[in-house]
Amino acid sequence: MEQLNVGIIGAGRIGRVHAETLAFRIPEARVASITDIRREAAEAAAASFGIPAVADSAEELLASPEVEAVIICSSTDTHADLIVRAAEAGKHIFCEKPVDHSLEKIDRALEAAARAGVKLQIGFNRRFDANFARVRRAVVEGEIGTPQLVHIISRDPAPPPAEYAAASGGMFLDMTIHDFDMARFLTGDEVEEVYTAAGVMVDPEIGRAGDVDTALIVLRFRGGAIGTIDNSRKAVYGYDQRVEILGSRGSIATANCYPNEAVVSTATEIRRDLPLNFFMDRYTESFVEELRAFVRAVVDDTEPLVGGADGRVPVVMALAARKSYEENRPVRLAEVGPTR
Amino acid sequence: MEQLNVGIIGAGRIGRVHAETLAFRIPEARVASITDIRREAAEAAAASFGIPAVADSAEELLASPEVEAVIICSSTDTHADLIVRAAEAGKHIFCEKPVDHSLEKIDRALEAAARAGVKLQIGFNRRFDANFARVRRAVVEGEIGTPQLVHIISRDPAPPPAEYAAASGGMFLDMTIHDFDMARFLTGDEVEEVYTAAGVMVDPEIGRAGDVDTALIVLRFRGGAIGTIDNSRKAVYGYDQRVEILGSRGSIATANCYPNEAVVSTATEIRRDLPLNFFMDRYTESFVEELRAFVRAVVDDTEPLVGGADGRVPVVMALAARKSYEENRPVRLAEVGPTR
Amino acid sequence: MEQLNVGIIGAGRIGRVHAETLAFRIPEARVASITDIRREAAEAAAASFGIPAVADSAEELLASPEVEAVIICSSTDTHADLIVRAAEAGKHIFCEKPVDHSLEKIDRALEAAARAGVKLQIGFNRRFDANFARVRRAVVEGEIGTPQLVHIISRDPAPPPAEYAAASGGMFLDMTIHDFDMARFLTGDEVEEVYTAAGVMVDPEIGRAGDVDTALIVLRFRGGAIGTIDNSRKAVYGYDQRVEILGSRGSIATANCYPNEAVVSTATEIRRDLPLNFFMDRYTESFVEELRAFVRAVVDDTEPLVGGADGRVPVVMALAARKSYEENRPVRLAEVGPTR
Amino acid sequence: MEQLNVGIIGAGRIGRVHAETLAFRIPEARVASITDIRREAAEAAAASFGIPAVADSAEELLASPEVEAVIICSSTDTHADLIVRAAEAGKHIFCEKPVDHSLEKIDRALEAAARAGVKLQIGFNRRFDANFARVRRAVVEGEIGTPQLVHIISRDPAPPPAEYAAASGGMFLDMTIHDFDMARFLTGDEVEEVYTAAGVMVDPEIGRAGDVDTALIVLRFRGGAIGTIDNSRKAVYGYDQRVEILGSRGSIATANCYPNEAVVSTATEIRRDLPLNFFMDRYTESFVEELRAFVRAVVDDTEPLVGGADGRVPVVMALAARKSYEENRPVRLAEVGPTR
Repeated sequence: MEQLNVGIIGAGRIGRVHAETLAFRIPEARVASITDIRREAAEAAAASFGIPAVADSAEELLASPEVEAVIICSSTDTHADLIVRAAEAGKHIFCEKPVDHSLEKIDRALEAAARAGVKLQIGFNRRFDANFARVRRAVVEGEIGTPQLVHIISRDPAPPPAEYAAASGGMFLDMTIHDFDMARFLTGDEVEEVYTAAGVMVDPEIGRAGDVDTALIVLRFRGGAIGTIDNSRKAVYGYDQRVEILGSRGSIATANCYPNEAVVSTATEIRRDLPLNFFMDRYTESFVEELRAFVRAVVDDTEPLVGGADGRVPVVMALAARKSYEENRPVRLAEVGPTR
Repeated sequence: MEQLNVGIIGAGRIGRVHAETLAFRIPEARVASITDIRREAAEAAAASFGIPAVADSAEELLASPEVEAVIICSSTDTHADLIVRAAEAGKHIFCEKPVDHSLEKIDRALEAAARAGVKLQIGFNRRFDANFARVRRAVVEGEIGTPQLVHIISRDPAPPPAEYAAASGGMFLDMTIHDFDMARFLTGDEVEEVYTAAGVMVDPEIGRAGDVDTALIVLRFRGGAIGTIDNSRKAVYGYDQRVEILGSRGSIATANCYPNEAVVSTATEIRRDLPLNFFMDRYTESFVEELRAFVRAVVDDTEPLVGGADGRVPVVMALAARKSYEENRPVRLAEVGPTR
Repeated sequence: MEQLNVGIIGAGRIGRVHAETLAFRIPEARVASITDIRREAAEAAAASFGIPAVADSAEELLASPEVEAVIICSSTDTHADLIVRAAEAGKHIFCEKPVDHSLEKIDRALEAAARAGVKLQIGFNRRFDANFARVRRAVVEGEIGTPQLVHIISRDPAPPPAEYAAASGGMFLDMTIHDFDMARFLTGDEVEEVYTAAGVMVDPEIGRAGDVDTALIVLRFRGGAIGTIDNSRKAVYGYDQRVEILGSRGSIATANCYPNEAVVSTATEIRRDLPLNFFMDRYTESFVEELRAFVRAVVDDTEPLVGGADGRVPVVMALAARKSYEENRPVRLAEVGPTR
Repeated sequence: MEQLNVGIIGAGRIGRVHAETLAFRIPEARVASITDIRREAAEAAAASFGIPAVADSAEELLASPEVEAVIICSSTDTHADLIVRAAEAGKHIFCEKPVDHSLEKIDRALEAAARAGVKLQIGFNRRFDANFARVRRAVVEGEIGTPQLVHIISRDPAPPPAEYAAASGGMFLDMTIHDFDMARFLTGDEVEEVYTAAGVMVDPEIGRAGDVDTALIVLRFRGGAIGTIDNSRKAVYGYDQRVEILGSRGSIATANCYPNEAVVSTATEIRRDLPLNFFMDRYTESFVEELRAFVRAVVDDTEPLVGGADGRVPVVMALAARKSYEENRPVRLAEVGPTR
């Protein structure tokens, strides 16, 4: 079997996940090279996952003629620029979310990819989760009719360090970005206006860093539906990832995922173990599926299921949500920037 | 056993429910008299539930020295006035929700009751529901810590006729009023500001009558928590009544109630029957419990668990929610009127 | 409304339940008289539920021309004889389970009732429970096809005193008797053979009294299905009442019933409160429904839904189950006595 | 990393599963060689999973000095003999269940492995399933106290062809064998006596082939607990794999596993998709875990978690269950053969 040769830029947590996935779960691809600004991180990953080459830099990796596609897992502020350079080098691109915090830089990156004619897929892995894919299917197939009320609940088990919270662009760009993507994916519709109620309830340090840790964001969709995103940086019981849509013909709601289906009944309560604790456990299979889809899009020369525009709109939504929070009023996405 | 003698004003649907409850479920009270503007309705109820007297009018009923307490179940526009007259007649009062659509009239009614020193309980029956009482207990006892995110889902199985929708004061005063009460009851906190996103998605007639049938209302609580009320006039699967609170130490969420706990597995799906279809089935026991509590408050001379102020604040909330809908901006309750 | 005049023989726990039900929940009947070998028990019940007469004895009660029907709630050893006397007095009869431990005495009682042409209903209340009625309906309507595997789980929250266990005829006659009735009711089929594996796991005193407290009873049905009854005198989490049937076209399974539908998620577990603790809470409505059905059968002159033969067969099953336990071999019901 | 060199004997369905697992999921091992009596099957597997060598025969594979351990996935009648030869060749052995239908042959195989000092692990993969491992943990850690009542429900989505049913040794040796292992694993106890009620309810052809397709098997454990195994060759809703244990301090029960956690509510029902359909989907991870454990036992020189004796006792149980079925009486395992 001919294998797609992939280069990985960034050997941090998510870079290692992708490396392991490509090494063990996707026979159609192999990791030909990896790089990281901390060379020892790249070397460790290479050793763990049998990667034959460690590049000194992204430049070196992108210059390798063997590499046909790159997975960009470096820090967010490097994404846009790396997309441009990878595109110019003729490499197909899978880039982690968010593309950037600046719409201008995103636009430049998207244009570069378009100009070069390379594939560009954004790392919104949740689209490939079995629960959310099932919800999407219910909408597409008319099983629940026209969506009217949409709820996305997305809570983390514990907040990141406050310094990370600030550097990451804040909760809306770092965490809610996934939920903004879900809102679009699940409904197949676009949001026109948002209203944010948010606060600091979990960690005062996050507040001092200028961010929030708890939020409700009201979404108004073009098609008339309304919805909410519910975010918390800390649900003590763990990772809480649910959606619910009421449609004209029915509703669909997902529950959390658990490490087992055992229920214990004692003299004081009926109980079960906590849900899968964080995204590495909860979304394991979706990380595999998104890469499988990317490799397939490249090999079969088809459109990626999560394209560049899908990477841009959620950033607009995040900026609008932030603006709404700061001004305590509903904000139309058009105020922040064009969504197409 | 000495029984409390109760008079019932209004022999419509809810009046009959209260009459039946008093006749068969609450040995500590008896219905001494009933009246209705349609005399035949009062007579039918009297025959069904063994009520010895049918009064020609509310005046006549209130003039009866035997009657110690009244249950006001007539149309909303008569509530405030009847409270005043019942108070002046020295009768204890149980009044259906809402007290009135006008804060001035509510204030007059509350003052009359206070001046007369009679008990006044408002018919927010859901406080006596086992699910919601359990949630309240979790908050009171610290089981889930400090509330941070509050969700109230309240959907009807089918919309009322559009003409009713208009006459009732609109969805916020007629239907959401219960949810506004829940928001206060469950958290033990007061809402300071609301923001409404709403629309007409179920029945265009309701829109033509000037009302909405689908809404999301964001609540900001004095204590810092934020929340939503989710309303629909029509969930095709039936009556949907759930709440969920995320607190600093845990969360509590309630599910719907069903006519049975049977699950059927077939070659195409795993299924169960639809939930209890509407409030008469879903909240049966809460109607009994609220009257039991009222009778007890009168007999024991204690404060009613749902007092006059509890009847006033939700009206302020409803007016603010409507204003927010009309102006598409967050509205502070203080803009509409004092909440105390 | 003409009311059926009922006499109650036995003012113990279940007698009081029936008295309260007739007093407050069934307008079509009234309790005209009550009696108990402890006169003060009868008087207390009369005071609580507004019963106008307390009879000195069952004889006196049965001699009252006013009494049209009797509810027999006295101790099991008096049931058969009282049925005979009530039948001879021309009274319709509702008798608690079991009718007797002796098939001869049961036969005499059934014959007396048949001869007198009075209604005879046995107190197998679980047939009127919403869960089990739903399962029955699934079988009757073909929703799950032909039953193949049947499981009845029936566990008490705590064992009775060992002396009661002995006097009651043992677990099979006292507790499992309900499950034997369920096996027949749910499937609409008859059991031909049983095999019992049982032991003393809960309370050694029960063993010393010659009884068991834990059992599995295999049932072979005439129609080919096989099944089990699972009994324990003590499930620490409370009353466990479930059934499950696998049929050729699907399965149906019921879950326990709970005081509320709230789920609490904490840092250590996802939990809910314990199920309704015992039969008085779990089967409240079924006690009402069985009496309603009895009153209706008398008033409308129709066959009771649980007739005399339904009171006899479970006793045969219990005797066969005991014999199987003692001899550790499958026992055909025909070895113990005719089932018709 | 040093990798364990594994040879696979048998490239049928389960052989391919193990080959794929070793190729992609267990970095500590590699498949060095594969063989099958149908050479093209071995070649196809070699191509799919990058296996460097295809052996002409088991003899040739066992003669390869490179091969350190073998996975025996050939037909059941070859297992015992291959264990002997692999042991004599000094290879560590993982053998699919059942070892054989003859206790004499099993004993010879176990003795050969013991004599050679090689590891022998039997393919009871369900021990490595998250649900059943959780139940085992509840028992081991005393979470539910002493087991009293044990239920194992194990139903297939569809029966095998009748000819397979016969060749496989019948349902008890082919299908129930896993449940016999579960009974021992979950409780940590041994069964002393079984009683079988069984029949042909699914496919008359299975009956004509001398086998049954539906069964209830009562288990009496040495420690006093009693239990049942519930088997059906056909549950129309799919693969049904649950266990439930009542202990002195609580109970634990597992539910089925589903492809998603979405619930759809419509105008007619509340429903979810069918459970994972068969063992390849339901037990995917347990197949990985059992091989991981085997590789670890070999590499670390520790006792396999499922040893040779664990392969023998379930065969005794199956033979006793069959004898009980034929003679319709409880059968002690000692009647069939020693369990140690």
